[in-house]
Amino acid sequence: MRTAIYPGSFDPLTNGHLDLIQRAAKLFDRVVVAVATNESKNPLFSLAERRDLVSRCVEGLKNVEADTFSGLLVEYVERRSGQAIIRGLRAVSDFEFEFQLALMNRKLNERLETIFMMPKDTYTFLSSRIVKEIAQLGGDVSPFVPPEVKRALTAKLSKGKN
Amino acid sequence: MRTAIYPGSFDPLTNGHLDLIQRAAKLFDRVVVAVATNESKNPLFSLAERRDLVSRCVEGLKNVEADTFSGLLVEYVERRSGQAIIRGLRAVSDFEFEFQLALMNRKLNERLETIFMMPKDTYTFLSSRIVKEIAQLGGDVSPFVPPEVKRALTAKLSKGKN
Amino acid sequence: MRTAIYPGSFDPLTNGHLDLIQRAAKLFDRVVVAVATNESKNPLFSLAERRDLVSRCVEGLKNVEADTFSGLLVEYVERRSGQAIIRGLRAVSDFEFEFQLALMNRKLNERLETIFMMPKDTYTFLSSRIVKEIAQLGGDVSPFVPPEVKRALTAKLSKGKN
Amino acid sequence: MRTAIYPGSFDPLTNGHLDLIQRAAKLFDRVVVAVATNESKNPLFSLAERRDLVSRCVEGLKNVEADTFSGLLVEYVERRSGQAIIRGLRAVSDFEFEFQLALMNRKLNERLETIFMMPKDTYTFLSSRIVKEIAQLGGDVSPFVPPEVKRALTAKLSKGKN
Amino acid sequence: MRTAIYPGSFDPLTNGHLDLIQRAAKLFDRVVVAVATNESKNPLFSLAERRDLVSRCVEGLKNVEADTFSGLLVEYVERRSGQAIIRGLRAVSDFEFEFQLALMNRKLNERLETIFMMPKDTYTFLSSRIVKEIAQLGGDVSPFVPPEVKRALTAKLSKGKN
Amino acid sequence: MRTAIYPGSFDPLTNGHLDLIQRAAKLFDRVVVAVATNESKNPLFSLAERRDLVSRCVEGLKNVEADTFSGLLVEYVERRSGQAIIRGLRAVSDFEFEFQLALMNRKLNERLETIFMMPKDTYTFLSSRIVKEIAQLGGDVSPFVPPEVKRALTAKLSKGKN
Repeated sequence: MRTAIYPGSFDPLTNGHLDLIQRAAKLFDRVVVAVATNESKNPLFSLAERRDLVSRCVEGLKNVEADTFSGLLVEYVERRSGQAIIRGLRAVSDFEFEFQLALMNRKLNERLETIFMMPKDTYTFLSSRIVKEIAQLGGDVSPFVPPEVKRALTAKLSKGKN
Repeated sequence: MRTAIYPGSFDPLTNGHLDLIQRAAKLFDRVVVAVATNESKNPLFSLAERRDLVSRCVEGLKNVEADTFSGLLVEYVERRSGQAIIRGLRAVSDFEFEFQLALMNRKLNERLETIFMMPKDTYTFLSSRIVKEIAQLGGDVSPFVPPEVKRALTAKLSKGKN
Repeated sequence: MRTAIYPGSFDPLTNGHLDLIQRAAKLFDRVVVAVATNESKNPLFSLAERRDLVSRCVEGLKNVEADTFSGLLVEYVERRSGQAIIRGLRAVSDFEFEFQLALMNRKLNERLETIFMMPKDTYTFLSSRIVKEIAQLGGDVSPFVPPEVKRALTAKLSKGKN
Repeated sequence: MRTAIYPGSFDPLTNGHLDLIQRAAKLFDRVVVAVATNESKNPLFSLAERRDLVSRCVEGLKNVEADTFSGLLVEYVERRSGQAIIRGLRAVSDFEFEFQLALMNRKLNERLETIFMMPKDTYTFLSSRIVKEIAQLGGDVSPFVPPEVKRALTAKLSKGKN
Repeated sequence: MRTAIYPGSFDPLTNGHLDLIQRAAKLFDRVVVAVATNESKNPLFSLAERRDLVSRCVEGLKNVEADTFSGLLVEYVERRSGQAIIRGLRAVSDFEFEFQLALMNRKLNERLETIFMMPKDTYTFLSSRIVKEIAQLGGDVSPFVPPEVKRALTAKLSKGKN
Repeated sequence: MRTAIYPGSFDPLTNGHLDLIQRAAKLFDRVVVAVATNESKNPLFSLAERRDLVSRCVEGLKNVEADTFSGLLVEYVERRSGQAIIRGLRAVSDFEFEFQLALMNRKLNERLETIFMMPKDTYTFLSSRIVKEIAQLGGDVSPFVPPEVKRALTAKLSKGKN
């Protein structure tokens, strides 16, 4: 059985992430969406909230599960018996950073492979950061995130205003 | 009448911005320099100060005006009856980010076009951030900003030291 | 009246080119699609064929016309009383080359402005070269070019085989 | 069973290609190295020679085979019942071209996924072209290609001189 | 005598920095490693700690010395009678930022040249930031920094936990 | 004594090349401008013509000389007792190719260092190819090449027309 790990902040999950998960689910026996603790980035959603949103959005995909991790990614992948780390590539700037990260992870554990996949072209511009900005400015994020995430964003941001 | 909106932080306006405004003023009937609230970036100059500096520096250009905006850019452009958003391109990293922004804005309002223009080659390296750094380190910013902006920078930074 | 020149090889016109022409037609009083002689590139279609294909595809756009030119672009733009040169940007590699070209053209004629526009995101990957390759390998180019161009490609390539 | 296709010119196979094949062989049940006809590029080695060199160099990898193809890649992948196309990424310029190709292939067949992998960092600079140039200038290519390929290069180039 | 200045944060020095220093030491009569105050970045090590770590790691290189500076780099280089500023290039994103910085420094002092050098290919992915992240997550940084730096990192981070 | 080699096609020398030579001449005891045979590129000027043009244009620089070479660059540098190879960087695309070349040359001879320098910002767009294109289209190349090169271009191109 081949397991691929798809790590990220997912703060929150976007349609671009979901598209990539669906593509990966066809190529691997099991895909683990691994939500990173990411304390330094001061996330909008808590770790548990982010994992739950992923969980609900991948419910229909039988070989996909959501999990959380902290510490070194390569050690987490090892613990989960993963063979591959999946990363999405959208732009040249992604590419460079991802390339360095993948080289570093290979230094830390030569056995692990990083593979890069492309989201649907209409999601090229999408990022969690840009979704949060639009939501905070009062824009409609329906085309960019699953309905569960939209509801969570609305709830979270209206709470912030009180 | 065709109106182009040139949005940005302008914290503060540089000679590179001014060069672009002059070029745009030849191609459109009206150019609105739209200073963004930009609360998250913790600007050196207040919104009003930034707008006033722009205002004074574009005084000689009859079809150019300065304004401020908050919220979604596309909604502001719509309110001002703009047809085009103008953005300056200096480097590959600019290009990628601007490209994503423009795609996003097109998703939010298909009617608006983003057009990219190039500043004079000797301003390629210029940015508001680099100007502020030089000023803070005691360097001479005369070649990089209009005289009004230089005076404002000197006043602002000397105040900060007391 | 403001005239923009959209120069290129157009060997042949793709849906990406056409999309850009439609966008430019909204921003300028007149748009001239200027097909370059381009002898060195050994084009599949002759200069007249390329101009005619453009002509037929822009028939519905009242302020757009097709033309041909040889020699320096800046001199052609001057002759046509153009204020702006329009170029499409799809990728970083485009950007760099186009940037150098625009700087060079500005050196040759400071009065002319180059403005960059983005095609629809689903046309990001499109180029005349890739369309010709697919056609030559027997693939279906319907989603990538207007019907007139598809017919011309089929005719041209079937002739080549006899 | 999941099959991945690794297409290319392989004119000739380098250690960078071989490294990627070994990595892919761990992630998929079967890897087909598909040597492209590539008539336009005027290859140094014939199609049969290139396929044979690949065949001999992957002999020790049980789930890897060499093949040749002409025509559209997506149709070949379909015929071979492949689920994924594998491409190596070494640099930003690779990335952009590969990205466009992958988007195009997805338009032609939505079912096929392109995945990108990284060769070992010390092979980042390697390409078939650079290997051929060094061999032609009399340099030693031992660190860059398998022994079989080195012998074939020496034989081919000494023949060319008679 | 030709003096080159190698400025940076060095928070902390990595094997990539050290590799570059050794290369520069062969090309110039004197190399000054100039540790920047860099107050804004909130460094892990104090200015004195960073300079001392550099000092100890370059002890074996006779024409290399460590120093600190604040204020404008070009003024520091002038004071030290430097002819060249040395910068390491690892990736495209480095390149762009470094290019802008070098152009700016040339504007501020036309007499100073910036030269770019490449670290060993296996250090391409290395940065002080990534080393600190690995250390904070409990990973082993032995392959990435000199032993002195490893000891200092361990001491610093264990202190932080009490 | 430290010798730097500046290799290239120089078909023909531009003001951008000359600017770089002048900068390098201040940093090294001797600079050798090494004109490459470059048979494959089908140059406009013969090897001897290109070397002579360089010779005449660097006459005023005492520690600079022109030479020609064929075969592997690293072997030529070794023969000339060079310590460094100098390359100009203008754009991201340059950077990537040059980076690969430099890595390859380091593999072939670890002792040789490649250093990258930047031409004056107003020459960023300049290349021999673009100069030849302008000259062939009848444009004025005075701002882009030294007078000797302009005369040689005019002579060469008028001959071609007979």
